[in-house]
Amino acid sequence: MFSTQLIAGSAFAQNGSKPEPLVIQDQGSFAVGGSVATTPGTYNNNAPSAEGQSLHGDHAYVFYQVPEKPKPLPIVMLHGAYQSARSWETTPDGREGFQNLFLRRGYSTYLVDQPRRGRAGNSTVATTIEPTPYDQLFFDQFRIGKWPDYFDNVQFDRDPEALDQFFRSVTPNTGPFDANVIATSMSALFDRIGNGILFTHSQAGGPGWLTAIKNPNVKGIVALEPGSGFIFPEGEVPADMPSAAGTLKGEAVSAADFEKLTRLPIVVYYGDNFPTEPTTERGQDNWRVRLAMAKLWVDTVNKHGGDATLVHLPEIGIKGGTHFLISDLNNVEIADQVSKFLADKKLD
Amino acid sequence: MFSTQLIAGSAFAQNGSKPEPLVIQDQGSFAVGGSVATTPGTYNNNAPSAEGQSLHGDHAYVFYQVPEKPKPLPIVMLHGAYQSARSWETTPDGREGFQNLFLRRGYSTYLVDQPRRGRAGNSTVATTIEPTPYDQLFFDQFRIGKWPDYFDNVQFDRDPEALDQFFRSVTPNTGPFDANVIATSMSALFDRIGNGILFTHSQAGGPGWLTAIKNPNVKGIVALEPGSGFIFPEGEVPADMPSAAGTLKGEAVSAADFEKLTRLPIVVYYGDNFPTEPTTERGQDNWRVRLAMAKLWVDTVNKHGGDATLVHLPEIGIKGGTHFLISDLNNVEIADQVSKFLADKKLD
Repeated sequence: MFSTQLIAGSAFAQNGSKPEPLVIQDQGSFAVGGSVATTPGTYNNNAPSAEGQSLHGDHAYVFYQVPEKPKPLPIVMLHGAYQSARSWETTPDGREGFQNLFLRRGYSTYLVDQPRRGRAGNSTVATTIEPTPYDQLFFDQFRIGKWPDYFDNVQFDRDPEALDQFFRSVTPNTGPFDANVIATSMSALFDRIGNGILFTHSQAGGPGWLTAIKNPNVKGIVALEPGSGFIFPEGEVPADMPSAAGTLKGEAVSAADFEKLTRLPIVVYYGDNFPTEPTTERGQDNWRVRLAMAKLWVDTVNKHGGDATLVHLPEIGIKGGTHFLISDLNNVEIADQVSKFLADKKLD
Repeated sequence: MFSTQLIAGSAFAQNGSKPEPLVIQDQGSFAVGGSVATTPGTYNNNAPSAEGQSLHGDHAYVFYQVPEKPKPLPIVMLHGAYQSARSWETTPDGREGFQNLFLRRGYSTYLVDQPRRGRAGNSTVATTIEPTPYDQLFFDQFRIGKWPDYFDNVQFDRDPEALDQFFRSVTPNTGPFDANVIATSMSALFDRIGNGILFTHSQAGGPGWLTAIKNPNVKGIVALEPGSGFIFPEGEVPADMPSAAGTLKGEAVSAADFEKLTRLPIVVYYGDNFPTEPTTERGQDNWRVRLAMAKLWVDTVNKHGGDATLVHLPEIGIKGGTHFLISDLNNVEIADQVSKFLADKKLD
């Protein structure tokens, strides 16, 4: 059903046919952060109503694994829009994702379902979930191709089963998306685990910056295709960036908060098939402005004394990347780039 | 923050202070089963609407781990109402749950988020999620005690942090609960993995029986506190059972389908603090009728030539069990009971 692929590297069996076993010192899950909503009144055990009852919600759910002799800094992985921690697990075509790859490289991993998503579904705010058909839009917007055609160089397995698995990784919000609610729980996670590295994918970019502002235990950020939530110091927010997919806006934070982003190394990666000029191709044009905004953002961090790097992967010869670099056919090559960054910044 | 507890057993380090590492030959996740809803029309890549788009939903999400030299039959674990696969992971007070306990005993584990729950959130049917305050009702109904008092003998840690974690394991439906949708995806899972053992908790009891009817690869069922979906052959459905928590009804299936439940060993466990006579205590009375219905159900399976056993744990000296036997303070003792059943039935 799934293709298999040989992966080079010392962590794998020398015969190349199968990865070596993972040795896991400890694994488990917990909720972290969140709030409690209480309804006034007196609870009646034998005729219960809302009165006097409470609801625990808005927490994150975390599944962690600690390998033998772990490196000092664990990696926290935060998924993007319409996704859960599942993003970091097995790839759509059945290979190992960043969860296993970084366990094999000696890091403890903490995979998060953000508040109001996945297993952290309890929300203190109501929502309605409509079964919205988005498969074709996602195919375009996540730069797999222009539906129904794949990009020629795309790092996505063309077996229909891979696309089926990819579409089924989608899971809805169970309450309104709120970057501050997410960052608050993420900060509580870093309070619990201490110093660590934060990997963010896509929409998690914004909550990721906010988490680092809230908590100095965030010692480095690896942002994979951040898509929104670019924050600038008040007075330095760039002009709006219109695109065929809507207008991207920068957001203002205080100068004092922004300065906190200058105290840790940050790397931002983007994949392939970005247009260089405005185009009517909606799925691709969406990313033209995000890359442009990210470049301004990195420049602003560095202008304020920070250490941010943007890597547009095709420029270093890594072609065909979709929005899901973490599960692309060359995700080991992407992980190698990340490992090199972590080594360069002494985060390994 | 969490209490630690020494656990006896050969799988643990002899100094008793810490479990031995888990050696995991393979781990990952996938979606299984489900459907595709398609909206008529033609998709317009650059002005997308619902037209011509599809939605993948109603699948289950599965996280699996394979230990070294696994026993022949893997264990599939299906959670109950308001829960996800998180039920089987770390206990509310921070000890190992059934996931780790049965990995240590040599079983491959497949932890499921059922369709329209947790990471399998995409539903082809709409729903509204209201932030309903249920904490106190759950405390009563899951037989931790009578809010705010714990039962004297209860196997639940009284550290407030444990209760906080327990409440945060709750996660809502993201579409209507549908036992057949669940059983269809569960059957697809057994098609994929082959022969296996099914553990069900609470509301999963009903979908569990339906899965075994659909798929002969289910070689044994361990039902922990099944709470609904008791199915009987047409003409043998027992009378309704009223209780202070509502009326429990048996459900009819064809004689031919029911016979399929007689071809595999089944064990049903219930915990403690069940009333023996009708009572106005809602949380407890809910379980009086469920235990009574389960006894009739087991008798009916056996009358038709099956091999079903009901174990009311206090009768064998195991006291204080909540509705969540799998994460109670004595969950290792519960796991021992399950292991003995699996050995007796040559499922190990």
